[in-house]
Amino acid sequence: MRVAVAGYSTTKFTLDQLPIENLLVSATKQLFENTKNLAQKEIDAVLVSTNNNKKYLAPILSELAGITPKISQSIENMCNSGANSIVSGYSYIASGMAEVVLVVGAEQAKNSAQVLDWDMSRGEFTHPIFWGTMFAKAHKRKFGTTDEELAHVSALNHKNAQDNPVAYNPKTYTIEDIMNSKRLTEDLRLLDCSRSCSGSSAVLLASEKIAKKYTDSPVFISGIGQKTTSASFTKNDLTRLESTIDAANQAYSIAGIKASQVDVAEIHDAFSICELMILEDLGFASKGKAGKLVLELYKNGSKKINPRGGLIGSGHPLGATGIAQIAEIASQLQGTAKKRQVENARIGLVQNMSAAATSSTVLVMKN
Amino acid sequence: MRVAVAGYSTTKFTLDQLPIENLLVSATKQLFENTKNLAQKEIDAVLVSTNNNKKYLAPILSELAGITPKISQSIENMCNSGANSIVSGYSYIASGMAEVVLVVGAEQAKNSAQVLDWDMSRGEFTHPIFWGTMFAKAHKRKFGTTDEELAHVSALNHKNAQDNPVAYNPKTYTIEDIMNSKRLTEDLRLLDCSRSCSGSSAVLLASEKIAKKYTDSPVFISGIGQKTTSASFTKNDLTRLESTIDAANQAYSIAGIKASQVDVAEIHDAFSICELMILEDLGFASKGKAGKLVLELYKNGSKKINPRGGLIGSGHPLGATGIAQIAEIASQLQGTAKKRQVENARIGLVQNMSAAATSSTVLVMKN
Repeated sequence: MRVAVAGYSTTKFTLDQLPIENLLVSATKQLFENTKNLAQKEIDAVLVSTNNNKKYLAPILSELAGITPKISQSIENMCNSGANSIVSGYSYIASGMAEVVLVVGAEQAKNSAQVLDWDMSRGEFTHPIFWGTMFAKAHKRKFGTTDEELAHVSALNHKNAQDNPVAYNPKTYTIEDIMNSKRLTEDLRLLDCSRSCSGSSAVLLASEKIAKKYTDSPVFISGIGQKTTSASFTKNDLTRLESTIDAANQAYSIAGIKASQVDVAEIHDAFSICELMILEDLGFASKGKAGKLVLELYKNGSKKINPRGGLIGSGHPLGATGIAQIAEIASQLQGTAKKRQVENARIGLVQNMSAAATSSTVLVMKN
Repeated sequence: MRVAVAGYSTTKFTLDQLPIENLLVSATKQLFENTKNLAQKEIDAVLVSTNNNKKYLAPILSELAGITPKISQSIENMCNSGANSIVSGYSYIASGMAEVVLVVGAEQAKNSAQVLDWDMSRGEFTHPIFWGTMFAKAHKRKFGTTDEELAHVSALNHKNAQDNPVAYNPKTYTIEDIMNSKRLTEDLRLLDCSRSCSGSSAVLLASEKIAKKYTDSPVFISGIGQKTTSASFTKNDLTRLESTIDAANQAYSIAGIKASQVDVAEIHDAFSICELMILEDLGFASKGKAGKLVLELYKNGSKKINPRGGLIGSGHPLGATGIAQIAEIASQLQGTAKKRQVENARIGLVQNMSAAATSSTVLVMKN
């Protein structure tokens, strides 16, 4: 049983602290507007992806949207909540328990996943930047990665975000702007970081049989890889994301493709250094060479990587991020991404992860 | 692909406010002790069922237990989180995405699902008792249900809990004790209510193929029904739980059984009135007659309904409740429930629900 993305939507990302219920309903309303023939009664499951502390948001969203699904639940795995929820929806359909699943991700700009009790033992940097900077330092030492290469990641994502109407900050920055932005740690500057924001995104999953009712060009999830390593920062090698490597290998194997066949990818650039590591760990660049790849992409004006502008350029509403990545790749494969469109995009990839790649999800998508 | 319960555990329920991580680890450790041949590396998914506000508890539990699963996530749907998580684990196995799934539910006695923002508009009773008392009043008016019948629900559950070594309160109460307990609303007394407590429970799900490795008597989930109606208290008929009726019909149909074939059942007696309504809505008694059925069960010393003592007798650690119900039915069908054992139990049922039956899950289980 193949599972398709049959509809999607993403709301405007903003630094305003919007109510979580409004965010959930806005994305849902927009998905209904974007999707032909969709009736509330056809939806078998409503899954909410969020780190918000409010309880039973899936029944609340269902009620507000006039849906009475069989299954309703919230799913949380920090920054990787979105892809986790999509995989959960996939499994409900693939197992025959559901035909149509609505997955909605939403987060408020200020949220309880930004600083974690579990991280308190890590000293000064309770904020995620503590692991971002350790990754940066390790990569610099081992491969000679430069601040200028890191700055290019940010510049590339901010440039791409200019063509994304829902990005929180559609500004461009020069390499100098970025390298002169506030130094937060020895290795990372303000503009090396993604920014938590309010935002929401929705994806409609449907079995192959019914997907054609809702869209003329369903996009199929043809490979799924997932891996959880450790909730702590206990990796032996700080220059690789073991969970991403493992998840990518699973997804490539299931989809029957190689990294070189991917035409367009959304990857989880929580910090600039993450983008370099992910590009290497997905096999898009050999180890230590992603900095060169990014310089090239930037020079050529390529939109192959993070056409939305990534987390750095478009913003990072945690629970919505993975959903928005999948919505973007669906749009790219349908050829409807307008100014962001990658030409002849046939095979797409999404990489979504939680803190320091504690867990990673990789999806391969095809028409 | 049939999905089996291949192992389970439930920790001692208590009114102490234990750390959530300890609760999760305790149930997991006990499950490993109870389950032969289980190695950490065989676990494909770790699902945490809880209303706790801490983030990424599934990777934290995985790390503490030495597991590196593919899938890790928290699942929340209030008091129905437990059964929702089991159904999610079921779908991961039934879809072929996993072979072995560990589902662990845990809650602290004081938790953020007890009083809900969403309920604030309902006036004086922000606490769930507001809907419990509306249900009680409606049932009394329509069917002449008496306070004495309600008291028998509590007495029956407290009596059953005496044989449950993990119940929070292994005391028996006479009908008089219950009817003389503090009157909280016009229609419900203190001993009509379940009590939030700390507790945890774990279930190991496995595909049929591999389940025999872990247990000589796997118990299969042979019917699943789920329904979400409304997140608010907007039912036309306050004497029936629409979501439970719908979920039961689905589950019976999939399992190919009738209500009369169920030998033992765990049902969600959040308040005494709930037990009566559920017994009727599952088809164990005709509408308005469950009070009589409970008097009979009490007189005969039957353990058919809520052998653990239900939520009223054993306590209600929200996220753990559905898991503990499923663990109990698995034990009953294996014939290992000791003093609680229902003779010749072949077909078991679990009914788990969230606030005022906003959503219900019904599972049919067989050897």
